[in-house]
Amino acid sequence: MQRIEQHASFGGRQEVWNHFAGSLGCDMRVGVYMPPQALRGEPCPVLYWLSGLTCTEQNFLTKSGVQEHAARHGIVVVVPDTSPRDPDGKLGVADDEADDLGQGAGFYVDATEPPWARHYRMQAYVAEELPAWVEAHFPATAARAISGHSMGGHGALVTALRHPGRYRSVSAFSPIVAPTQVPWGRKAFQAYLGPDVQAWKAWDAVELVAAARERLALLVDVGDADPFLAGQLRPELLRAACDAVSHPLRLRLHPGYDHSYYFVATLLGEHMEHHARALR
Amino acid sequence: MQRIEQHASFGGRQEVWNHFAGSLGCDMRVGVYMPPQALRGEPCPVLYWLSGLTCTEQNFLTKSGVQEHAARHGIVVVVPDTSPRDPDGKLGVADDEADDLGQGAGFYVDATEPPWARHYRMQAYVAEELPAWVEAHFPATAARAISGHSMGGHGALVTALRHPGRYRSVSAFSPIVAPTQVPWGRKAFQAYLGPDVQAWKAWDAVELVAAARERLALLVDVGDADPFLAGQLRPELLRAACDAVSHPLRLRLHPGYDHSYYFVATLLGEHMEHHARALR
Repeated sequence: MQRIEQHASFGGRQEVWNHFAGSLGCDMRVGVYMPPQALRGEPCPVLYWLSGLTCTEQNFLTKSGVQEHAARHGIVVVVPDTSPRDPDGKLGVADDEADDLGQGAGFYVDATEPPWARHYRMQAYVAEELPAWVEAHFPATAARAISGHSMGGHGALVTALRHPGRYRSVSAFSPIVAPTQVPWGRKAFQAYLGPDVQAWKAWDAVELVAAARERLALLVDVGDADPFLAGQLRPELLRAACDAVSHPLRLRLHPGYDHSYYFVATLLGEHMEHHARALR
Repeated sequence: MQRIEQHASFGGRQEVWNHFAGSLGCDMRVGVYMPPQALRGEPCPVLYWLSGLTCTEQNFLTKSGVQEHAARHGIVVVVPDTSPRDPDGKLGVADDEADDLGQGAGFYVDATEPPWARHYRMQAYVAEELPAWVEAHFPATAARAISGHSMGGHGALVTALRHPGRYRSVSAFSPIVAPTQVPWGRKAFQAYLGPDVQAWKAWDAVELVAAARERLALLVDVGDADPFLAGQLRPELLRAACDAVSHPLRLRLHPGYDHSYYFVATLLGEHMEHHARALR
């Protein structure tokens, strides 16, 4: 593992690491924000952040303002890239010209279909390998929270729902809550998981809530000027699914806000408060 | 003039406008953050932000976190591009392959030398045309503050010092304080202003402080891990110049911080407090 960036930030340090991810069979870049408490050697709880389509680890690090909140609460923030990568084209990591499939669009599932199955195991990476790596190499406790945006909001919800007890809290910005019912999700799941629609349901937050054993409260924020609201995000499906089984959900629709990081930055302070309370 | 972006942000609205700038003879992009108070129609004071080499209006808008502070204080934030532009190559705006000359590197001077003199009149633009445009078209008062980063920190200091009474406050992050004495400044001034070194002094903060009629306090922050500190920024020259004439200066060197927007974001809240106090 190699540190490829470090910048002092709000009394802590924003780092970017490169490490070999066995679950993905490639090197991965990961942003790690070390709050001042961690720099002093105090083990800190960790927020895992999953980004959206086309993002790398950089988008959230540079655009969200997370460092101020993480420094205040003493939270390590871990931000992986959004798919396996193959910058030199030597590893045979499959790709697609479209923005919503292949590199930059891993959808946080474990692919079962060729040519994706060999490297596209993002769920194994974010739920298993990445936390183990973080907890082994950084002053990080096993108190974990998870959040994300858009495709990464889907990833956060699904990862928490699939792993009861693993996360103290979960939240999502503008998530794809029902990928089996919307174009982005259907396209990706068809490619990564094959034609059996039943198999897709294990990766769909709306389906998972219906069978959830753990009552982990979901905090979800969406902008009502989000151009993807009605076609791809469909938060009303999560509302209905949670209502049907009395799963705790705090879903808020914010007038005038869109799908950008301007929206994420506006609400991130409240999400960090939510996670900090659970992680204490 | 045309609004080309708008995003809800911290209860206000981040806009990007395109307008024809007569002083530059080309269209210019300008970020305008409208705090909630301005959206309600209340005239607000304005912070003008000048960015550094290679930047457009986007860098500060997306990376600094300024919107949260501007919303809290009720300040309009105006962020112009860093030089005249000619995206279609139809206007004959001169350029250079280097990052530190030509488009993206206007240095906030009024060029006198060919081929630059025709379009590179950034001082006229930022000090005259831009405030007039803002005050005519937005709910903005004539209470003005100015700040910037690196080349833009130079721009903020020089613009304030050249226009006594025009700004209520000025600050700078990692500024080039003595362009006539460092490689970036010498290269740009040689090109834009010609070989007469005496003419350069009208665009050098260290020279201007020595003759300043107005005692406008300078707030300047620099990181001691900034790779440009000793070769290009040289804040000690500003310290000496201010000490020599008892010009008020608050110069702080921050251990471990570099030249990036992670540094700007960390200190921006304090700068916004400084400006808000002066603008009230």
